[in-house]
Amino acid sequence: MSKIAPISGFPEFSPAERIVEQRFLDVIRETFELHGFCSIETRSIEPITRLSSQGEDADKEIYTISRLAGRARDDSKWGLHFDLTVPFARYVLENAGTLDFPFRRYQIQKSWRGERPQEGRYREFTQADIDVVDVGTLAPHFEAEMPLVIADVFQRFPVGDFVIQVNNRKLANGFFAGLGLTDVAGTLRTIDKLDKIGPEAVRELLLAGGATPAAAQACLDLAAIATDDLSFVDRVRALGVDHPDLDEGIESLAAVIETARANAPGKVVAALKIARGLDYYTGTVYETSLRGHESWGAVCSGGRYDALASDGKTTYPGVGMSIGVTRILGLLFGSRMLRASRATPTAVLVAVTNEDDRPASTSVATALRANGIPCEVAPRADRFGKQIRYADRRGIPFVWFPGAEGGQVKDIRSGVQEAADAATWRPPAADLAPSILRD
Amino acid sequence: MSKIAPISGFPEFSPAERIVEQRFLDVIRETFELHGFCSIETRSIEPITRLSSQGEDADKEIYTISRLAGRARDDSKWGLHFDLTVPFARYVLENAGTLDFPFRRYQIQKSWRGERPQEGRYREFTQADIDVVDVGTLAPHFEAEMPLVIADVFQRFPVGDFVIQVNNRKLANGFFAGLGLTDVAGTLRTIDKLDKIGPEAVRELLLAGGATPAAAQACLDLAAIATDDLSFVDRVRALGVDHPDLDEGIESLAAVIETARANAPGKVVAALKIARGLDYYTGTVYETSLRGHESWGAVCSGGRYDALASDGKTTYPGVGMSIGVTRILGLLFGSRMLRASRATPTAVLVAVTNEDDRPASTSVATALRANGIPCEVAPRADRFGKQIRYADRRGIPFVWFPGAEGGQVKDIRSGVQEAADAATWRPPAADLAPSILRD
Repeated sequence: MSKIAPISGFPEFSPAERIVEQRFLDVIRETFELHGFCSIETRSIEPITRLSSQGEDADKEIYTISRLAGRARDDSKWGLHFDLTVPFARYVLENAGTLDFPFRRYQIQKSWRGERPQEGRYREFTQADIDVVDVGTLAPHFEAEMPLVIADVFQRFPVGDFVIQVNNRKLANGFFAGLGLTDVAGTLRTIDKLDKIGPEAVRELLLAGGATPAAAQACLDLAAIATDDLSFVDRVRALGVDHPDLDEGIESLAAVIETARANAPGKVVAALKIARGLDYYTGTVYETSLRGHESWGAVCSGGRYDALASDGKTTYPGVGMSIGVTRILGLLFGSRMLRASRATPTAVLVAVTNEDDRPASTSVATALRANGIPCEVAPRADRFGKQIRYADRRGIPFVWFPGAEGGQVKDIRSGVQEAADAATWRPPAADLAPSILRD
Repeated sequence: MSKIAPISGFPEFSPAERIVEQRFLDVIRETFELHGFCSIETRSIEPITRLSSQGEDADKEIYTISRLAGRARDDSKWGLHFDLTVPFARYVLENAGTLDFPFRRYQIQKSWRGERPQEGRYREFTQADIDVVDVGTLAPHFEAEMPLVIADVFQRFPVGDFVIQVNNRKLANGFFAGLGLTDVAGTLRTIDKLDKIGPEAVRELLLAGGATPAAAQACLDLAAIATDDLSFVDRVRALGVDHPDLDEGIESLAAVIETARANAPGKVVAALKIARGLDYYTGTVYETSLRGHESWGAVCSGGRYDALASDGKTTYPGVGMSIGVTRILGLLFGSRMLRASRATPTAVLVAVTNEDDRPASTSVATALRANGIPCEVAPRADRFGKQIRYADRRGIPFVWFPGAEGGQVKDIRSGVQEAADAATWRPPAADLAPSILRD
């Protein structure tokens, strides 16, 4: 038998942390549904050929599965999905005949990646994705809608202050092309190093890549633009670059910012230095960070694909964002910033006077549950002091002592005890379920 | 690129079926929490050595995982768990130092088994488990508690009528030993064939196995006993078998039935023919079937282990039950007995008069969402008839037409349209979320 030990990159939250995770997932789901997204779950596996066609780097991250007693036949045919986009694209193609388009779906599932684990980066992790996919063309207003949904999630759960940074592939493409820079992807990769190596080093790299000093300066000026209103438009225009793609990109980004100002004020910023993702998305891109914790990197990203899926005849464009649930919680737990008020759903411990009277305690519990009050019956008919300590250790706020006429209920925090009827008594609403506390 | 096709044994529910599944999972979770169980999730993988030590048959069902680009190092070290009991036992040993015992946990997760797929039997499936585990000894009242929790789940969700059949390992052991039968496991395997091959064939097998005619008859008489009250006790006693284990088993089973009669009347039956599981459990065993669909087999099973987990020094006895979520839903969907009233969470479609007025529609949606009303804005400013058809096709009950003073809301089922204010209007409670319908 193998040693009992954690497996690096495969986190297991404690029961108290799990209460926080469940609440976060509840808020995410409730918010996605408020915005009219349907839930789907896809199987955990996809054909290896589909997974590894998604870029050169994908291979090294894929876990293949094989039957222990069936090697020869099955080996290497299937792999665990490493994100929810590849399975969703396949799902759209497989079910195109029965889905109503535009199809708004959310998907909250685990994914697996064989990469090196580090803080906030795991080999098994939960993501929560929304996407809208349509047939042939996708209206641009969906690009403006995505950050409203995500802002709504993060405003309903105490992750702290956050900002959704938005950029646009066409804006960047048009700007670089208008400057005469032909290696758009290379320029983006250089700009992406800005926070790490600083503007002077970026300038050197741009010059070394063939940019004129004026073009390099223009790139740095563009990257410095970050506004939560439409003033970014004039600032880009002031850089004097002209290109039809630039016009289109500006218009698209302006629409996103305008919608955000009206519906999620202060949460969305046009940040023209955002480069990551621009090389594979085709329109708007999003990158969310927690204010004061920018070094943690992006906790929710996404963008628009002109061809999320395609079967050769029909193309399905889509736009979406993905919340790194395990990543966010791992980082917040790691810095002790988020916790549950208790480690159990139980609000009331029903004490047991002696083992022969256990049925009376069970009846009280059955009556409380009928009113939606989570409770459990004490495991042993110990003396009451010991039963109260059982509750105290778990953070259970109330202990019920069954008696001739219903019994007595004690708030063990205040020590206040009163007569009560199990058919009608209710705890304060705040004690019914554990609260999520932000420290 | 591989062909787009389903993978046998890896089901994917439609968005409408997924709504039913989510509701079922909500009810399960809410009920487990009402009974004071804590949620944990374990990683999806365990060491192969731990998985394959769980019985001879386990090997052939295990999926191993390997990194596509790392074969040599990782191969065969880990496998996907095939149930939630093996990971839970490992979790208890790993966290024994920080858990409070008796530890009441629930776990709702996917598992994977490489066995041949058939109706209601999958290679990837969701199970919902509850267990109570303690250190050294486990009080017998926990064995009586389990079926109350499960009965509560099945009474809160329209799976239809059900029965939880209960038996006890000690009762069977003692009875067979008292009859002079030494091969208890073999006798159980024979009794287990009763429903398939009938009593006469079972009698033949028992006789062939060395039982006297009187002993064989006694076994058949025992297996015929099924009562939802304590009358099973007298009927067993009337068979005239004497053994201390039998006494202990009878007492234990009587306590389970007595508790059930008081708290879940009519849902739990002492069924002394239940043999499956008796060979590895050590006390009470449970097997739940849906009335009228007995041929579907067990949909929720479990039992007591004297050694759920052990590290050689300390033993952790436990008792638990496991709901086959995907199995139940697969069977009910397959016979078209359960469906959602609509395929989307959306309760209101906010129409768009023309694209320039989209912001007005988005504002209405933001206001409705602030009151917890799931809605979406129409994807295109088509003529209203087409927008209403968009809602109708998805089962969305209401369409909102924005106007100068809030607007008009139409119930598209009745055709009734009235002026409304997005800040205060609410749909009937029954329309807020999809309903689950039993056909």
